[in-house]
Amino acid sequence: MKLASLAHGRDGRLVVVSRDLTRATDAFPVVPTLQAALDDWGRHAPRLADLAEGLEHGSVPSFRFHEHDCAAPLPRAYQWLDGSAYVNHVDLVRKARGATMPESFWTDPLMYQGGSDASLGPRQAVQARSEEDGIDFEAEIAVVTGDVPMGATREEALGSIRLIMLVNDVSLRNRIPGELAKGFGFVQSKPSSAYSPVTVTPDELGEAWREGRLHLPLLALVNGTLFGKPDAGADMTFDFGTLIAHAAATRRLSAGTIIGAGTVSNRDADGGPGRPVAEGGRGYACIAEQRMVEAIRSGEPKTPFLRFGDTVRIEMKDAAGHSIFGAIEQEILPHG
Amino acid sequence: MKLASLAHGRDGRLVVVSRDLTRATDAFPVVPTLQAALDDWGRHAPRLADLAEGLEHGSVPSFRFHEHDCAAPLPRAYQWLDGSAYVNHVDLVRKARGATMPESFWTDPLMYQGGSDASLGPRQAVQARSEEDGIDFEAEIAVVTGDVPMGATREEALGSIRLIMLVNDVSLRNRIPGELAKGFGFVQSKPSSAYSPVTVTPDELGEAWREGRLHLPLLALVNGTLFGKPDAGADMTFDFGTLIAHAAATRRLSAGTIIGAGTVSNRDADGGPGRPVAEGGRGYACIAEQRMVEAIRSGEPKTPFLRFGDTVRIEMKDAAGHSIFGAIEQEILPHG
Repeated sequence: MKLASLAHGRDGRLVVVSRDLTRATDAFPVVPTLQAALDDWGRHAPRLADLAEGLEHGSVPSFRFHEHDCAAPLPRAYQWLDGSAYVNHVDLVRKARGATMPESFWTDPLMYQGGSDASLGPRQAVQARSEEDGIDFEAEIAVVTGDVPMGATREEALGSIRLIMLVNDVSLRNRIPGELAKGFGFVQSKPSSAYSPVTVTPDELGEAWREGRLHLPLLALVNGTLFGKPDAGADMTFDFGTLIAHAAATRRLSAGTIIGAGTVSNRDADGGPGRPVAEGGRGYACIAEQRMVEAIRSGEPKTPFLRFGDTVRIEMKDAAGHSIFGAIEQEILPHG
Repeated sequence: MKLASLAHGRDGRLVVVSRDLTRATDAFPVVPTLQAALDDWGRHAPRLADLAEGLEHGSVPSFRFHEHDCAAPLPRAYQWLDGSAYVNHVDLVRKARGATMPESFWTDPLMYQGGSDASLGPRQAVQARSEEDGIDFEAEIAVVTGDVPMGATREEALGSIRLIMLVNDVSLRNRIPGELAKGFGFVQSKPSSAYSPVTVTPDELGEAWREGRLHLPLLALVNGTLFGKPDAGADMTFDFGTLIAHAAATRRLSAGTIIGAGTVSNRDADGGPGRPVAEGGRGYACIAEQRMVEAIRSGEPKTPFLRFGDTVRIEMKDAAGHSIFGAIEQEILPHG
């Protein structure tokens, strides 16, 4: 089934959305918010699935669904942990600054804890204080878990995945070096993330969802032009089961925890860094990566970071070309 | 007023607690949970204050209050950001490993984002997988904010403080170097934190709360023996207003955000590192600091980290010797 939270109060108003994203039905008779549904998923999910089936058959009351009415599926969540599962991306970051990556990065996931108290809806602007902060998007896949016990195995972790969605993990590139140099994580360099209008259960993805990976291209557009279409299933060193188990190694995770896999990033067919879309490559899921490739190839980055007035669009389509999660589409605006 | 969440479901059951921590009255007629109270504080706080007054006068129904019935005031919170406001502590960490601390640490707060989806109540055991992880406590003060706009000033931030409480920021010392070396923060090395039974509004602290600092000794005991009594108001380089404004520099903070000030740490009267309690000093709010002082003085740390079966108690008393927040008292146990 597909679920969305219409903008309403602090936690949104849960609706069940039709597979083609054209119609919705209120979930209120079952449960008012997505967090409440996740808190007792075993009880609520079957009844929400019934609503989803009724919606497909036209047997429940429904209304027109508009993506721009949506808040994030979890407008505020109790936890957001973002891994760097596409180690290719991390390797490039290092190469671009002439450093080598520790071998352990191929076996021990990088993960940071981010803010999830005030997430952005799919059409809400990214507000930044200055273009000098180096405003960038990161197109990612994320999952929402149920309760995960401390020390869960990868298999148990895979079984805890309730929902899947898209994220724009907004990043302030020029604030990252200073923050990371302090050693305590990204804090000021990662403002609120934005999420796709719709979040879906794994069964909605059919064969594209296997072994904890989503095997479809993730589309990223800047000002209407394709910037990247990397395959989210390729070059994903750590699957979602491994990422969740990593997060739960020393502590339990509560229902509604969001786990991201980091910026999607593909190698080129020859094993080197991927090429830009303009050169026939799959492009990139963030501007920083294109800049890194430019730096590696020509000595300096050329593509600018986002400027006020720019827009970013992030979307994923199924094999038939239909949008699965709806689109994140955000304008970049000055704060205040 | 003083508030607590009795263990009940995922979010606890909010009660108003008498000043002397002996009696409580149900807050349910006003609002069922602390998060719900914070979501609309302007409406709920005056009515909760009326209950608190009625409780002192014996004019509302009440029952015996037991600290061991409590969950954390916010059993799950949308955000937990912990600063290192006692720069003396950070300086010692560096000295103990022969490194110097950047000057900027005196003006730019260190802060990490931690897990708040599954906090421990004041009497819940700390469960760890192995003593080899180097299990340690960190006795801290934390505040709970209302909504804080992005870019808030220190003064606005101070005005956003709704509640104050104590924290045990449980730390796995031997996992920290590996995690911090990856540059993305503490994740696996900071399991769930525990909180005091009671959280209080700033006015309950009278003169002890001024300029965003709590000027009272924070007591830490290990296995019943005093380990530290550092003054939380002394040597606090960054006050809570500054810490909150730092957190809100690039993003807004939602109501119910918890901001910690890090391990309380005092210098000795001569300006050097504080001395152990056994030598007439104020001691330490974590074992790591005593070990660092030992390493600086004699070349190697002597005090062991916590072992299974050990207990830690964290408490703060007012000028008259009465417990303000009740006590965190946790046993260390093997997981599973």
